[in-house]
Amino acid sequence: MFNKNRRGVVFAAGGALAASAMGDMAWAAPPDRKLGYAIVGLGSYGLGVIIPQFKNCRNSRLVALVSGDPAKAKRVAQEYGVPDKNIYNYDNYDEIRNNPDIDIVYVCLPVSMHAEYTIRAAKAGKHVLCEKPMAVSSAECEAMIAACRQAGKKLMIGYRCHFEPYNLEAVRLARSGAIGKLRYFRSEHGFTFNDPNAWRLKKALAGGGSMMDIGIYALNAARYMTGEEPVAVYAQETTDRNDPRFREVEDRIGFQLEFPSGVIGSCMSMYSANQNHILLMGDKGRIEMEPATGYYGNRMWIGNGREKEVTPPPGPGATQWAGQLDHMAQCVLQNREPIVGGEEGLRDLRIIEGIYRSAREQKRVVLKA
Amino acid sequence: MFNKNRRGVVFAAGGALAASAMGDMAWAAPPDRKLGYAIVGLGSYGLGVIIPQFKNCRNSRLVALVSGDPAKAKRVAQEYGVPDKNIYNYDNYDEIRNNPDIDIVYVCLPVSMHAEYTIRAAKAGKHVLCEKPMAVSSAECEAMIAACRQAGKKLMIGYRCHFEPYNLEAVRLARSGAIGKLRYFRSEHGFTFNDPNAWRLKKALAGGGSMMDIGIYALNAARYMTGEEPVAVYAQETTDRNDPRFREVEDRIGFQLEFPSGVIGSCMSMYSANQNHILLMGDKGRIEMEPATGYYGNRMWIGNGREKEVTPPPGPGATQWAGQLDHMAQCVLQNREPIVGGEEGLRDLRIIEGIYRSAREQKRVVLKA
Repeated sequence: MFNKNRRGVVFAAGGALAASAMGDMAWAAPPDRKLGYAIVGLGSYGLGVIIPQFKNCRNSRLVALVSGDPAKAKRVAQEYGVPDKNIYNYDNYDEIRNNPDIDIVYVCLPVSMHAEYTIRAAKAGKHVLCEKPMAVSSAECEAMIAACRQAGKKLMIGYRCHFEPYNLEAVRLARSGAIGKLRYFRSEHGFTFNDPNAWRLKKALAGGGSMMDIGIYALNAARYMTGEEPVAVYAQETTDRNDPRFREVEDRIGFQLEFPSGVIGSCMSMYSANQNHILLMGDKGRIEMEPATGYYGNRMWIGNGREKEVTPPPGPGATQWAGQLDHMAQCVLQNREPIVGGEEGLRDLRIIEGIYRSAREQKRVVLKA
Repeated sequence: MFNKNRRGVVFAAGGALAASAMGDMAWAAPPDRKLGYAIVGLGSYGLGVIIPQFKNCRNSRLVALVSGDPAKAKRVAQEYGVPDKNIYNYDNYDEIRNNPDIDIVYVCLPVSMHAEYTIRAAKAGKHVLCEKPMAVSSAECEAMIAACRQAGKKLMIGYRCHFEPYNLEAVRLARSGAIGKLRYFRSEHGFTFNDPNAWRLKKALAGGGSMMDIGIYALNAARYMTGEEPVAVYAQETTDRNDPRFREVEDRIGFQLEFPSGVIGSCMSMYSANQNHILLMGDKGRIEMEPATGYYGNRMWIGNGREKEVTPPPGPGATQWAGQLDHMAQCVLQNREPIVGGEEGLRDLRIIEGIYRSAREQKRVVLKA
């Protein structure tokens, strides 16, 4: 199922293990070389979360902005020292091809725009880091992978938890046998959505509801925590369509993943209650995380119940986002494939499509390998 | 969904709510009247758990023993002051009809013997308290109900958690709106079975594996916590048949219950890991219990995460078992129906049969009302 390189870093042979690859210093780029990022989309995540992280990076720097709001872009550019010439909008976006400052484009747009802006970036000769979910469909994911491959550019998906110390330590502990043989994995991810006008509640923009936005954390964790790919899924959706928030997209969706080893992954996704929880149940104990995949403040326990709190070793970056940004930069610098490339995003989308189909047809869906 | 009697005791109109009916003093019998119990089966539960509880009872006393082991029965009789004439074996069991000391028979036998010994007790003119699961099949449950009805005798099933203070308080809090609208219910129940020769691992004696023995706590709690009856179920079984413990019965079975309100009940039952957990997730917070249905040491929190620990008011008896024993005695004394009668046991068995069918056929099973 897994092997270790000579520095003890755990890698998945199969499955979607979050390898703490950045910890491998033999792979690290010279600390003085920084690649330039263009941030596409100045919404709450791009502007509020990602842009402030460049100060924590070793190999990444902010060099350009792409926004449909010129005044906002100018304000942000001034705050972060981005030159005016490196501000783009959605019409002149393709001109980034002529800007050597930009090595990598980070797509932080609504999901329905991921495919277009990833493909255009690849065609402009740029590497792409794209937020999750990768796209609104697996067909779009395949097109994105093909475009990047054809352009000879790297593609990485923004699975920040693969760079988050608690999640990395949970994977390490589970693989080390600390809780014996894994019996099942459980995760609930949800929050209470208050704004009925948010783009995440529009089917055309988001591609789906809670499953696409927050349930994907449970799904992805089920894969990297078990180190296996699910072979079948059963899902149940319960959404109050009279609730103005949920006219277009689903609220709650529970899904049960069957893994080849017999492990069951039992997951819940929702937009109407706050929960962020992961449990790995082994025959000799458990690992529990709550919050499990938060921006900050994650906690973890090992044993039976909440016996022993675990403080993980530092992750590959000063923060999970710095680790993620620098991993992409190092992959470009050293011509290696990101640990969460386009195939990782595609796998999740294929499973999500199976989840939606199962919920719609009320039956178990076998997943293609 | 519910109403309150004048003393504020919560009763279910539908569903299987654990009413703290014993708290209603208007219904209580005179404290000096004690009915006589015969304990059938001196195994770990009957002998180790139930018999020591009579000292905590107001309306119940131990008067007779039924055992296949004469020496053991004599030793226990001496310890608890049961006269020799009130010791029976499985051959002369029907002679209890001639013993006016015995009002109620408590069947603590392997599951496959529940139906026979309940029906024989009813035919001998005795009321019956029978351990859960009620029987190995719903057909047997129906026969037991019919036999007790025909004999004009009460039938109660040993659902001790309906008399357990933490569970009663969780139901009260959920019904009071303390966590807002219920979104989903989750429960895991399991323990590590070590003895491969135990009767609970023999299909012919236990009727099934973990689902019958420990998973039934999750199932029954899903019903009394939500106050609803499930309309459909999907289940997944994963059992290592090479494990000598699981040659005949299932180890793990996950099951998803659909309730009419849209609440999902997500449950896990297992014989290969220790877990005893209940979560009620509402849109304004949650109730979490761990252990949730233990003999002792249950704990409960309300809020978001484990913010605020709850100490419940006392239950209807000095212990959950005393509450249970006395409830049956008071039902007999006052000619009322037990809050967990034969129909309650039958409902669980019908759902368990649906769970097994779903797991076998790998499809969603609609449950008959």
